[in-house]
Parts: sequence; C-alpha cells; structure tokens
Amino acid sequence: MSTLNLTLLTDLYEMTMMQGYFKSANHDVAVFDAFYRKNPCDGGYAICAGLDQVIDYIKNLHFSAEDISYLRGLHIFDEDFLSYLENFRFSGDIYAIPEGTLIFPREPLIKVIAPIMEAQLVETAILNIINHQSLIATKAARVCYAAGSDGVMEFGLRRAQGPDSGTYGARAAVIGGCKGTSNVLAGQLFDVPVLGTHAHSWIMSFPDEYTAFKTYANLYPSACILLVDTYDTLKSGVPHAIRVFREMREAGIPLTYYGVRIDSGDLAYLSKQIRKMLDDAGFPDAVISASNDLDEYLIESLKLQGAEITSWGVGTNLITAKDNPAFGGVYKMAAIQKEDGNFVPKIKISENSEKITNPGNKTIYRIYDKATGKIRADLICLADETFDEACDMNLFDPNEPWKKTRIAGGTYTLRELLVPVFENGKCVYDSPKVMDIQAACTKEKDTIWDETKRFVNPSRIYVDLSDKLYRLKHDLLNDMSES
Amino acid sequence: MSTLNLTLLTDLYEMTMMQGYFKSANHDVAVFDAFYRKNPCDGGYAICAGLDQVIDYIKNLHFSAEDISYLRGLHIFDEDFLSYLENFRFSGDIYAIPEGTLIFPREPLIKVIAPIMEAQLVETAILNIINHQSLIATKAARVCYAAGSDGVMEFGLRRAQGPDSGTYGARAAVIGGCKGTSNVLAGQLFDVPVLGTHAHSWIMSFPDEYTAFKTYANLYPSACILLVDTYDTLKSGVPHAIRVFREMREAGIPLTYYGVRIDSGDLAYLSKQIRKMLDDAGFPDAVISASNDLDEYLIESLKLQGAEITSWGVGTNLITAKDNPAFGGVYKMAAIQKEDGNFVPKIKISENSEKITNPGNKTIYRIYDKATGKIRADLICLADETFDEACDMNLFDPNEPWKKTRIAGGTYTLRELLVPVFENGKCVYDSPKVMDIQAACTKEKDTIWDETKRFVNPSRIYVDLSDKLYRLKHDLLNDMSES
Repeated sequence: MSTLNLTLLTDLYEMTMMQGYFKSANHDVAVFDAFYRKNPCDGGYAICAGLDQVIDYIKNLHFSAEDISYLRGLHIFDEDFLSYLENFRFSGDIYAIPEGTLIFPREPLIKVIAPIMEAQLVETAILNIINHQSLIATKAARVCYAAGSDGVMEFGLRRAQGPDSGTYGARAAVIGGCKGTSNVLAGQLFDVPVLGTHAHSWIMSFPDEYTAFKTYANLYPSACILLVDTYDTLKSGVPHAIRVFREMREAGIPLTYYGVRIDSGDLAYLSKQIRKMLDDAGFPDAVISASNDLDEYLIESLKLQGAEITSWGVGTNLITAKDNPAFGGVYKMAAIQKEDGNFVPKIKISENSEKITNPGNKTIYRIYDKATGKIRADLICLADETFDEACDMNLFDPNEPWKKTRIAGGTYTLRELLVPVFENGKCVYDSPKVMDIQAACTKEKDTIWDETKRFVNPSRIYVDLSDKLYRLKHDLLNDMSES
Repeated sequence: MSTLNLTLLTDLYEMTMMQGYFKSANHDVAVFDAFYRKNPCDGGYAICAGLDQVIDYIKNLHFSAEDISYLRGLHIFDEDFLSYLENFRFSGDIYAIPEGTLIFPREPLIKVIAPIMEAQLVETAILNIINHQSLIATKAARVCYAAGSDGVMEFGLRRAQGPDSGTYGARAAVIGGCKGTSNVLAGQLFDVPVLGTHAHSWIMSFPDEYTAFKTYANLYPSACILLVDTYDTLKSGVPHAIRVFREMREAGIPLTYYGVRIDSGDLAYLSKQIRKMLDDAGFPDAVISASNDLDEYLIESLKLQGAEITSWGVGTNLITAKDNPAFGGVYKMAAIQKEDGNFVPKIKISENSEKITNPGNKTIYRIYDKATGKIRADLICLADETFDEACDMNLFDPNEPWKKTRIAGGTYTLRELLVPVFENGKCVYDSPKVMDIQAACTKEKDTIWDETKRFVNPSRIYVDLSDKLYRLKHDLLNDMSES
C-alpha cells in the first residue's frame, strides 16, 4: 500500500468540514490528539505501532488530478476549494510516541499541530493505521508472553482482513515479538524473517506420506519440519518422520533444525506422546511445533498442561486480534492556536466522565524508578511544563484525585515520550528498522512487572495529570456547567 | 491495492512446496476448492464477495526482477527454480460463485484447476481476499436486515484493520446492502455512494454550537444533518438545530434532506425525545440518524424499544465483524488430473468428521422451489453429473444420511452456482459494477425465508451431496481405514 496515493483514504466528512473551514477563511492552527481509552483484551498495556506508515502517508499527501476530478463529480465541492486542494500539502507539526513503546490509555500517541483544514483531513488515515498496527503489536506481545522463551511465528495471512491487514499486521506482529511471519510480501517490504515449511496438500500430492516426507527432507535438510497430521499423527505421521530422520542421520546429513508440526487434535496429549517417540528414537533435539487456532490463553493452558511444544505458529487469532479486533483509538481537538501564538484549550464533554477529553497542547513524561528501571507512572502535562528529577513529585489519579503518591526526588528518571516527527511539514524523524523496533520493544517489556503483563486482572500503570493540566481541565468544566 | 504486484502475498510454504514440485518435475494438474465450514455469527447464510479482486490478482500474477532478487536472498531457492519463476504466469482454470450470491458451508466458492505449482501459489491470496470480503458482506447483510427499510451507512474506516481492510471492507459492506460509505477512496475506486456530514471538532472549532450549525447549514443546505451531542443533546444540540431549521424555512431555503445525528447517550430515549421536539417544532420530516458502536443486535433492540431512528451509521462492529472477525475459509486439494485426463479424487481425513473434505472435481446446483422462488437445498455433485428438472430428486444430509427428502419433478428449478472465470489462464468473466452486485444480492436475499435470516437459531439451508459423490467419498474413506 505504501506506493499508493492514500490521500482519499479519509471520511467524506473530513472533506466537507475542510471546505467549511476554507469557506469560513478559518486558518486557525489546531492541536489534535490521537489516543485510546482501553487496553485491548483487558490487558495492562498496549504497544504503539504504525508510525512509519503514518509518515509515508503524510509525505505522500496530495490530491492528484484524478482525485480532484472525482471530488468534482460528487457535486459537493466548489471550484475555489478544489483549486486550493490542487496545491495542498501538509505543512504542520507532528509529534509521536516511537513504535514499539509501551503505551497506556488516554496518552496522546500522536499529536498533530496544523492549520485546522490539514489537521482535520489526516484524522481518518492516522487512526486507521495506528489503530490497526498497535492492536496487532499488542496482541503479539501477549501471545509471545504466554510462549515465554519459545518462538512464535505469525501465520495468519489467509485469515487477515485483506492484503495489507495481513502485511502490515505481520510487521506489527514482529514488532510485538514474533520471530517471523509466513507472509513473503511482509518479508520483502519490511526485511523481517519469513518462515514456513509445507501444507497437507504437499503430503496429499504424493502416493504416500513417507515419500512426501522423504522428498521434502532431501530438498530442505537444514530446516526440516514435517507436518505429521494429514492421516494419523501417532500411527502414521510421527513414525514416518522418524524413519526419514533416521535415514538422514545414516546418510550423514546433519540434523540441524528438524522436527514435526501438528495442526489438529489434542495438542497437549499428542505433543507429549510425540516427545516420547522422538526421544526413544534418539532424536531428543527434534522440535515439536504446533498450530491450530492458538492464542495467548491456549498457549498458557498448554504450557500448564505440560505440553512438549517449543515452537508456536499463530494465525487467525493473532492477525485479527480475534477476541478484541478493534483498538478504539480516537482523534480529538485539544486546542486552537490563535494568531497571537497562544493555545486556547478545547474540551469535549460527555455524560460518561471517562469520555471527557484532556484539553490543551500537551506532552507525556514517563517516570522510571531508578533502582529497578520499572515504570512508576506516566504523567500527562502541558507541553511547556518542566520537571526536575531532583525534586519530589506528587502524583494523583485524575479520576480519583484522593489517591495520591509522592515520589522522592533523586529516586526517579523522566523520559518525554512524544518526539518530533514533522516540523512545518518536513519529516525530521528516521524510522528504525523493524527488527530494531522489535529489539527496543523487548527492552520496553522489561520496564513493567509480570503483574502488569498477566492476562487476568493485570495491575494498572497509572497515567496521571499534572496539577496544572488538572486545574485547567476543571476550570473549563466549571465554565461549561455555568454557561 | 489493485495496482500493486501482490505476487509475493503468499505464505512462504507455498513457495517451498512450489520448488519441491518443480524439483520433482511434478506437472500434475490439481483441483483445489476454497470453501468455509461455518456461517459467521452463527447465522443461517453468508454472502460471497471479493471475486473481482481475485481476478485482478490472478491477472497481475508475475514475479518481478525485484521479487526474484528478494527470493534469491533468502538462500532457500535454486537458480533453476528462480529462472522458472521469471516467466511464471497463471495458466489454469478458475470457477467461482458470483459475488453477492448467498452461500452455505462446505460449498466450493472458488475452484482452481491448474498445474499444482500454480494452484498452490495462489492459495493464500485467494483465501485472504475471499475470507475478508465475504465476512464483511455477510455482516453488512445482517446489519441491514436488522435495519429493515432504513438506510445503513458504513462508517468504520478509522477502526478497520489497515487501509484496504477499510476500503475493500467498504466495497463488501455495500454489496451486503449498505447504502454508502464514509470512505472517499472506496467511493473513488468502486463508484459507490459516499456519505457524511461533520464531527464534534467542527462544533468545537466555533465559539458556540449555534454558529457551527448555522455555518454548516449555509454551506450544505440540501443535505443538512447536524450532530447534536457535542455539549448537551436535548438542552443545547436539538434546540440549536431547530433554530437553524426554522431560520432556513423563514429564509425560503428548501428543507429537502435535513435532520440530526446522535453519537452518544441512550439512543432509544434520546431519539424519542428528539422526535417529539422536532415534530412539535413543525419538522416531522427531519431525519434522526444514529451512530455509536452499533451492530445488528443493538439495532434490533432499539427498534423493539420504539427508537425513532431511521438512518444508521455503523462503524467498528461492521468493518471488523467484531463478534466474529474471521471467515475461516480453507483451500483443500480435491483431485489430481493424471496425464490421461482422468481426475483421481483426493481426500483429507481428520478426527473431526466435519473436517473431512469432499473429494473430486465438483460443482454445485441450487434447487429453487418453483412456486415460491425460495431455495429448497443446494446439491454438491461431481462436475460431470447432470440432472433433469422433470425428474424427482432424492436429497439427503451427508452428515446424517437417514434424513431424506424427495422433491417432485417439475416443482423445482436448478441453477449451477460455479461459473467459469479463467480458462487456460485467460479471464472469461466480466465483473459487474458494485451497485449491480448489490442489486443482485438484494434479490438473493429474497430466496431465503426470514427464518434463515434471523439471528438466533436460524433455520439451516441443507447442502447435500449427490449419490455419486457420497459413494465416492465413502469408498475413499473405507480404502483409507483398510490400508
């Protein structure tokens, strides 16, 4: 998708509002925050991904002659506005949390500061890209957490919601911790490892299972994982695989990476039986790999049952985040910058107090405990606030302000999460390679305790508001209720 | 995505198997069926979609120099195989059920008859495309069924799983019955209606709600749907909207299509209050439109509660098919054609009897009741079988063969569902326009009773096997269990 012009990948209302601002000669600079409200799968965290595709999108943003002609044909847009679109480019600033970073609800993942027409247009595509990839990166991190030190392979392309759901989804899955993907296009586009062996159809295309295995082993002796469940796993598949491994050994072919894959049946029972058969036959280092509608819960359960599986192929449930297939990120106006340069904070109120937005031009500091390196809390504050690591810090939960904590000066370090990505329309950020993002993400995972990573009732990381931001928000709410 | 080369949109194992067939000089022609096992959302039917993108994919199938170079760099493929790929084109036959057709479990939606290397390569992309679009078309049909004669708009782009999940998803949603989409790119690519008005940010960018509404109404008087829940729906939003409508009327501006949209709160309660306020103010034809995490179950419930909503914007839950985000289609070998032209049937067995495949080169006939036009049953049979509508037909459920029905000759008509799409690599099928597919799909929905469309315990349409196919399957299973 990266070579396509995605400028029209937007909701029609972004364009009708744009024309409205154009006709009203509204050139105010607006601040918009993209954030989410709830961790996927009731987890304790999420992982940010998709920024590199957002950068591509913003860089390529322009209305081609065909786009203008299409818009003209809708009979909604006037010629003066269409002329304006001809020379449209994104001219604003974008700040973002780097990919692979742990994120928590209500934090601006992306902040856009741009003339309101531009800031409005980009809403839909930014949300689409960030929502999708952050969802899959998060799901992958959960699956990899369940698998512990075992490798997890992303195998979901055929069940993904369209071509680039499978392809960008594979990218996000690798960021979240998968060792590779079956998707060759993702391998080509993102330089990530591609993995896979053969399907049942390979076995069925030969007169018998042994010949199919033998042919495969001759072709790919150095990565020889044989699928053993086409006919009968324990009576046919595994004995034939052992026969082939034995013949390889007798022929002096080194057995470097070899073993079996099971794709059906009771994986706990079968894997234990297979382990015994392989061990008894003198192949204790043969890998047992499994697939078949796996997810983090099933892998955790199989491990508890003592399943002898050390390599996991995860498809549908990962690539669609099946139990929670939408990330729910939103994009809300936070401030308008007037001609004097001052930001006028804006707030969206709601009957549901958790849906009330945080006003103002903001940033986020992550507070790490110096002794352990773990996250103590995140702090959302106004962009011009500064903090001194030598001073004590008072934190409180914005929804329950009586819950307070004091962090002693000198015991914590601060990291600003939002980094500049575009300045005056110019990209000022180099995206790391995907495998480097994966490595950074692995380190990120070490900044939270297992209590936050567990699947049931995870311990929450607090995201607090600075005193100044909290007061600003409450003053605005009071003004509204009085008006 | 249609302009991109999707040749590498495949699982690595398709390529390793291809090389295996190449090295074994296996040029057998294979028959593969793409089918699914279970209707989404425990429904009574699904709707087929995505064929047009499959056709694009097959037509464009070729390995570019960059693709070959990438594959070479994996150090898995030999030069003779890479040379073969340089001139690779799809040379086989493809049959498919036309888009917008009602489909049922176990029916081959797409049948590929091609040299095994070619048939294997295309597995992943065909499944990816058909699984995605059929899923969303089916979900849309369910949502539209709940909405009855009201219009349903597809509004999910920002929550879709990546750019073309939102774009091809919008296409599928329109096939399934949505009157349009918010996605401008989908409008441009597929010539489907695009819809939408304004967001909360429009309201927030003005000093007050009335001015925001008034400005919008001046700009778009002929499609004036005002979003009334930014501050307070009943106390602020609706009174301001009424003031604007009144001023429009006084100014002599015709109120053609106008009304309000609500995106939060208790939609049943609010819509009834709003209806009363609009009626009392003399605007009985003002539309009340609603959005906010809707799906078929919520729409059905809101209608039962007497909600006064006649226009529905459906986002996340439709574009991701949230309660069932994967279609689960599979692609299984059914036969190998030997050099003498005969098809040798192939079967994949499983401990789960529903996972046993139907062998042989097959087709499907739909049996319609002549009197009502409704579907009596579908019949999967071997491709060379013929039936005479004048003769009685004996049907039985393949899983419960004691359940038999006789349909009297002369009371039914037959329609073969699979049509030729590619012959010897040449496309022989013209895809209809999307709005024509939607119209055909609307007629399709009339061929099943409400009992099959309902959401809870829908009545099933039987998919039976011909006597000949049933016997072939059982002979193969008996041979296997004896060997």
